[in-house]
Amino acid sequence: MFLTRTEYDRGVNTFSPEGRLFQVEYAIEAIKLGSTAIGLKTKEGVVLAVEKRITSPLLEPSSVEKVMEIDEHIGCAMSGLIADARTLVEHARVETQNHRFSYGEPMTVESTTQALCDLALRFGEGDEESMSRPFGVSLLIAGHDENGPSLYYTDPSGTFWQCNAKAIGSGSEGADSSLQEQYNKELTLQEAETIALSILKQVMEEKVTPNNVDIAKVAPTYHLYTPSEVEAVISRL
Amino acid sequence: MFLTRTEYDRGVNTFSPEGRLFQVEYAIEAIKLGSTAIGLKTKEGVVLAVEKRITSPLLEPSSVEKVMEIDEHIGCAMSGLIADARTLVEHARVETQNHRFSYGEPMTVESTTQALCDLALRFGEGDEESMSRPFGVSLLIAGHDENGPSLYYTDPSGTFWQCNAKAIGSGSEGADSSLQEQYNKELTLQEAETIALSILKQVMEEKVTPNNVDIAKVAPTYHLYTPSEVEAVISRL
Amino acid sequence: MFLTRTEYDRGVNTFSPEGRLFQVEYAIEAIKLGSTAIGLKTKEGVVLAVEKRITSPLLEPSSVEKVMEIDEHIGCAMSGLIADARTLVEHARVETQNHRFSYGEPMTVESTTQALCDLALRFGEGDEESMSRPFGVSLLIAGHDENGPSLYYTDPSGTFWQCNAKAIGSGSEGADSSLQEQYNKELTLQEAETIALSILKQVMEEKVTPNNVDIAKVAPTYHLYTPSEVEAVISRL
Amino acid sequence: MFLTRTEYDRGVNTFSPEGRLFQVEYAIEAIKLGSTAIGLKTKEGVVLAVEKRITSPLLEPSSVEKVMEIDEHIGCAMSGLIADARTLVEHARVETQNHRFSYGEPMTVESTTQALCDLALRFGEGDEESMSRPFGVSLLIAGHDENGPSLYYTDPSGTFWQCNAKAIGSGSEGADSSLQEQYNKELTLQEAETIALSILKQVMEEKVTPNNVDIAKVAPTYHLYTPSEVEAVISRL
Amino acid sequence: MFLTRTEYDRGVNTFSPEGRLFQVEYAIEAIKLGSTAIGLKTKEGVVLAVEKRITSPLLEPSSVEKVMEIDEHIGCAMSGLIADARTLVEHARVETQNHRFSYGEPMTVESTTQALCDLALRFGEGDEESMSRPFGVSLLIAGHDENGPSLYYTDPSGTFWQCNAKAIGSGSEGADSSLQEQYNKELTLQEAETIALSILKQVMEEKVTPNNVDIAKVAPTYHLYTPSEVEAVISRL
Amino acid sequence: MFLTRTEYDRGVNTFSPEGRLFQVEYAIEAIKLGSTAIGLKTKEGVVLAVEKRITSPLLEPSSVEKVMEIDEHIGCAMSGLIADARTLVEHARVETQNHRFSYGEPMTVESTTQALCDLALRFGEGDEESMSRPFGVSLLIAGHDENGPSLYYTDPSGTFWQCNAKAIGSGSEGADSSLQEQYNKELTLQEAETIALSILKQVMEEKVTPNNVDIAKVAPTYHLYTPSEVEAVISRL
Amino acid sequence: MFLTRTEYDRGVNTFSPEGRLFQVEYAIEAIKLGSTAIGLKTKEGVVLAVEKRITSPLLEPSSVEKVMEIDEHIGCAMSGLIADARTLVEHARVETQNHRFSYGEPMTVESTTQALCDLALRFGEGDEESMSRPFGVSLLIAGHDENGPSLYYTDPSGTFWQCNAKAIGSGSEGADSSLQEQYNKELTLQEAETIALSILKQVMEEKVTPNNVDIAKVAPTYHLYTPSEVEAVISRL
Repeated sequence: MFLTRTEYDRGVNTFSPEGRLFQVEYAIEAIKLGSTAIGLKTKEGVVLAVEKRITSPLLEPSSVEKVMEIDEHIGCAMSGLIADARTLVEHARVETQNHRFSYGEPMTVESTTQALCDLALRFGEGDEESMSRPFGVSLLIAGHDENGPSLYYTDPSGTFWQCNAKAIGSGSEGADSSLQEQYNKELTLQEAETIALSILKQVMEEKVTPNNVDIAKVAPTYHLYTPSEVEAVISRL
Repeated sequence: MFLTRTEYDRGVNTFSPEGRLFQVEYAIEAIKLGSTAIGLKTKEGVVLAVEKRITSPLLEPSSVEKVMEIDEHIGCAMSGLIADARTLVEHARVETQNHRFSYGEPMTVESTTQALCDLALRFGEGDEESMSRPFGVSLLIAGHDENGPSLYYTDPSGTFWQCNAKAIGSGSEGADSSLQEQYNKELTLQEAETIALSILKQVMEEKVTPNNVDIAKVAPTYHLYTPSEVEAVISRL
Repeated sequence: MFLTRTEYDRGVNTFSPEGRLFQVEYAIEAIKLGSTAIGLKTKEGVVLAVEKRITSPLLEPSSVEKVMEIDEHIGCAMSGLIADARTLVEHARVETQNHRFSYGEPMTVESTTQALCDLALRFGEGDEESMSRPFGVSLLIAGHDENGPSLYYTDPSGTFWQCNAKAIGSGSEGADSSLQEQYNKELTLQEAETIALSILKQVMEEKVTPNNVDIAKVAPTYHLYTPSEVEAVISRL
Repeated sequence: MFLTRTEYDRGVNTFSPEGRLFQVEYAIEAIKLGSTAIGLKTKEGVVLAVEKRITSPLLEPSSVEKVMEIDEHIGCAMSGLIADARTLVEHARVETQNHRFSYGEPMTVESTTQALCDLALRFGEGDEESMSRPFGVSLLIAGHDENGPSLYYTDPSGTFWQCNAKAIGSGSEGADSSLQEQYNKELTLQEAETIALSILKQVMEEKVTPNNVDIAKVAPTYHLYTPSEVEAVISRL
Repeated sequence: MFLTRTEYDRGVNTFSPEGRLFQVEYAIEAIKLGSTAIGLKTKEGVVLAVEKRITSPLLEPSSVEKVMEIDEHIGCAMSGLIADARTLVEHARVETQNHRFSYGEPMTVESTTQALCDLALRFGEGDEESMSRPFGVSLLIAGHDENGPSLYYTDPSGTFWQCNAKAIGSGSEGADSSLQEQYNKELTLQEAETIALSILKQVMEEKVTPNNVDIAKVAPTYHLYTPSEVEAVISRL
Repeated sequence: MFLTRTEYDRGVNTFSPEGRLFQVEYAIEAIKLGSTAIGLKTKEGVVLAVEKRITSPLLEPSSVEKVMEIDEHIGCAMSGLIADARTLVEHARVETQNHRFSYGEPMTVESTTQALCDLALRFGEGDEESMSRPFGVSLLIAGHDENGPSLYYTDPSGTFWQCNAKAIGSGSEGADSSLQEQYNKELTLQEAETIALSILKQVMEEKVTPNNVDIAKVAPTYHLYTPSEVEAVISRL
Repeated sequence: MFLTRTEYDRGVNTFSPEGRLFQVEYAIEAIKLGSTAIGLKTKEGVVLAVEKRITSPLLEPSSVEKVMEIDEHIGCAMSGLIADARTLVEHARVETQNHRFSYGEPMTVESTTQALCDLALRFGEGDEESMSRPFGVSLLIAGHDENGPSLYYTDPSGTFWQCNAKAIGSGSEGADSSLQEQYNKELTLQEAETIALSILKQVMEEKVTPNNVDIAKVAPTYHLYTPSEVEAVISRL
């Protein structure tokens, strides 16, 4: 009797005979169920736009946070399990504050991303800082440091890539195609806002309003758009 | 032989191939068996109303506590396993007292909620403060801080949302529909009391009396209604 | 192949798909095999009466302790695994003594009950103070503090309720019905003694003697009845 | 496919659906294979008599110790796994010596028995002092303290009872019946010696000699009978 | 029922009946899915050339790092799980810096390789520095020390070999054959660059550009080629 | 489906339903495969004789040590897994040296044997000094202390017995029968040597030579016979 | 359903019903796949000769180390998993250096071998210094101390033997037969070199060259033969 693929998920961090790590692949599935988030890098800064699923009219839209500040020069958008993302963001906030305290300067965006991925990689090891399973979340990390604006994309395996533009979440496939068509390095920040929101609009099943999307930029510091600033972008579509 | 869904519950915190965490989903089932609790936020403060199941006439109704004070500006209603809820509330009480001691000011309602959810998220990790399984309880956390009144809803996954109104427990589906119909942001606290109790009355199978419901408010401090205060609200229905 | 209910018992503290904790339910089964114990609260104090199963005439009846003193103002009756109960009682004795030493006053009955339930809740977590399985015992905790007399009932899940009267053990179902018929809040302590013993008599399969029942009261301090005091109650039946 | 009874033994300390602890029940089976031991309490003191299985004529009978001194006022007879019993006895010796050192007086027989049972109860918990399985041994603990002579019986579940007379081991069923017939509280120590040995003789398959039985008394201090003292008792049969 | 090969993967570090370690073999499978990397040693220094898989035009090619500096005299190329490789490289960087600090001289290339392999060997042991599974990565470690240039190859079992030339990753089989044909010890560094890139070109499915390959040398210090330097090598093909 | 006997071996230290410890029984099987060893106690001292299996003429016979000195007044012969025996002997050497250092006198033979058995009993408990399985070895411990000469026999369960004569290993059954026929307490040491070797000769499949047997005595100090001393005993057969 | 032999390998260090340790037997299988190594002891010193499998012409033959120095008076040849052997050798190097530092004299060859075997024996115990599985390697340890030259052979069970000559690895069976025919204690070191290499030649499938064999001697210090010294021995065949 050969064991089948589904039996590998219980050893949380072991290879299958084909050299695959199924728990990581299953965590990636969790993200495919998540809300869509989009990031675009421009010379002026980075724009993040996220879909917010307001499952009930009684929910406070501002409490559905899918974009968060890590440090004043770094923010991130997320898709997947929000509680997992909060743990990662809190970890990154501590790391960036420690770095400022120890070295008197902001942590670079890449080092911050690496610190997040180190934590994500070591799941299932039973030590104090790690989870007993992969973090079920992808992040788009937008930042600005001595190398200018940058955008990183992380996945549950603890791997990260630097991107010019990237979409994550349930609508990421279609959104990525649209980004490849519409992105170029000479975009202004305002054009990037418009592209991000117009693509988000395509993948969302409902009308875009300041209640069900969030926009943030790092240019060069993190700023979460107010409802009226979001409304202004919507009006440009 | 493919393993089936029910086999995932034994690895307490691992993903299924579809990216799901079954132990968390099963814990949510435990809450669906629990008594109903309702919260409404008004400009004047937050109202919590809970059903108390008095399984025997020999039980002391006041000892069936489904609404508890966390700090003088925060209270919570609960549904699910009461012993689990007590552990969470006790944890939150220590956190809010420590905060007062360290910083000389009350902890915000959101930070208190986050502290509760951090503990809930990390089940199955074997460290001293966490449980070996998810906490089988949902909370409605009512509070009042520098941002005014607020109402949070937490679930066993360690996720939380800010709401204007929310119901949890076995009657939550019907109660949430009624809340969406009857809630508006201009409600007075007294109107909120009446709505909460009238909805609770619909989902309970027996006559509402001061013995089988509890009402509490945070406006701006926590207050558990006396039997005669509950009677007064009942008389308004 | 679906797993069946009986396969959940090996993960000592995990939810089943229906949101149940089977080890706790199985521990409750252990109590249903135990001897019957009854508690009644009156304004004068609380009465505890327990059946003692003397399996051999060579056993010293006084060494079959089913009622124990926790502190001078708190006692408890038990049903289920006696060795487990002894561990809980010993834990409570240390807690109440520590409280007296630290604060110079007796611990309240509710705090003592909560301390016992905290220990009971955290089974299966591998830390030093907890058991690797639920405690297979229910307790009736009788006490007298600044709030007057009180009676608490605990079960293996670590939940507790305050009661006016309660029966536990193999005869608890019938005994609870009788208590509901005969209990009222105006009972004298002497009437409570008579009711407790008459109900115990119904559920026991043999003649009641000072050898096979124990009676204790907390009024306001713990007192275990001497054989002649028990005989006096028997003669009133 | 329902799991069957025999599958519970691998979780060393978990309840079965019927509320049973199988490892404890299996350990009790181990004792039913053990040699027989008998204890009788008289007003003058306690007598212990044990069968010694001398499996080879080359074995030194005096090295087959089934009766051991714990402190000068406490001794015990054992049936089951001798190596387990030695661990328990060694634990009790340390406890009683520590008690003498700390309090300047001998430990009571009940406290000593409780200390042994605390250790026995907590098997399978992975801490330093406990075993990974139940102790496969029953003890008859004879002692003399401020309350006069006493006899305790312990089993692998960590439960203990005070007895007037008790038999353990493979012949315990028949021996217990004989004890019930022949025991009364007015026996002299000499009569108790005779009864113990005559009952042992019935359950043993070979002739009783000073080589294959041991007798000890606590009256009021522990004394292991010399071969000639044993011979004297045999001659009285 | 005999267990089959695929059932060995869950004990992460145990032998199969044939004396094999399957988790290590499965990790080697993970590398066969990786991008191709090639190393050549010449008298002037060592050349490393790697394929970079740019899965989206929106990815920043420079952020796909498959060649990394360990110390100024050591670099490495990698194939397999990049997050695992980053952990190994970070470990090696700490080791080489510690060595410089403790001994005032650079660590030899062999000692650095041994330190990496020590970490890789001890997976599955639960201690703080090791992974719970094998590292799913092979490295080509190029360095220059008192013994001149050297090239090491490591695999997931923690074994290493010194080579004159070596290819790893999905195209390694064909690339190794080509290396055996074309390599000789008298190659100049420039000839080695050309051979490495021409072989890489054969195994890659797309046109070679400065965007999808990286070249580095240690001669005698680590240098990652700029896009124009890569272009210069491409133009020599 | 009932589990069968062979399935108990994986919980290393749990009871079977019949009250048996299978790992201990399996370890005893390992000893039945071992070489034969014989011990005889006389008034003058104790003799140990062991078979040495020289599997290849290229093996150095003196390096096949089946008799070892523990302290100058204690030696032991072994059968089973030699590496396990070495661990036990090393433990005993440390214990006896510590005892000499702490108390200024040699450790008694019984205390030394008890110390060895304490270690053997606690297998499978995960602490630092114990093995994860039973020690697969039996020992014959010969010593001389204030009580004169003594001979102890230990098995993998951690039990020990004092004997006048005993054989262990693959030929123990026949050798024990011969010992019962030939042993008496009045034997001289020289007669004991002759009996031991003549019995060993019966159970060995090849000619007895100084190469394939070892003889040692404790009389009153440990002495391993030289080849010529062994030859002298052989010549007396 | 009886479990079959192959199911024992997952409890890494438990006995089978026949008293066998399968993981150790499986590790021994790993060695049967290894390259052949031969050792011979002469009065002048010990010779070690090993086959080196050069799987690719691009491999640096000198980096395939199958003979290693432990201390200046001890060397070893190995067969099996090279990474495991490196761990053992590194452990032995630390032990011998510590011994020199503590006692100002070299460690004896037997003590060094015992230290290696202690580490090998305790696999699967989860402590810091041991592996989670047996070491998959056999060693031939050659040394020279106050007792003159000596040769030890170790296997994965942690057992060791002293030998005059021994072969390990895939060709060990044939090589051992040849050694028994050709070995005598009066061999000169030069004759031993010739015998070792001629036997190695028989079991290797290719021509013997300085590239695919290594020779070392301890006479009385460790010396690894240069290619020309190896060539000289080859020329004598």
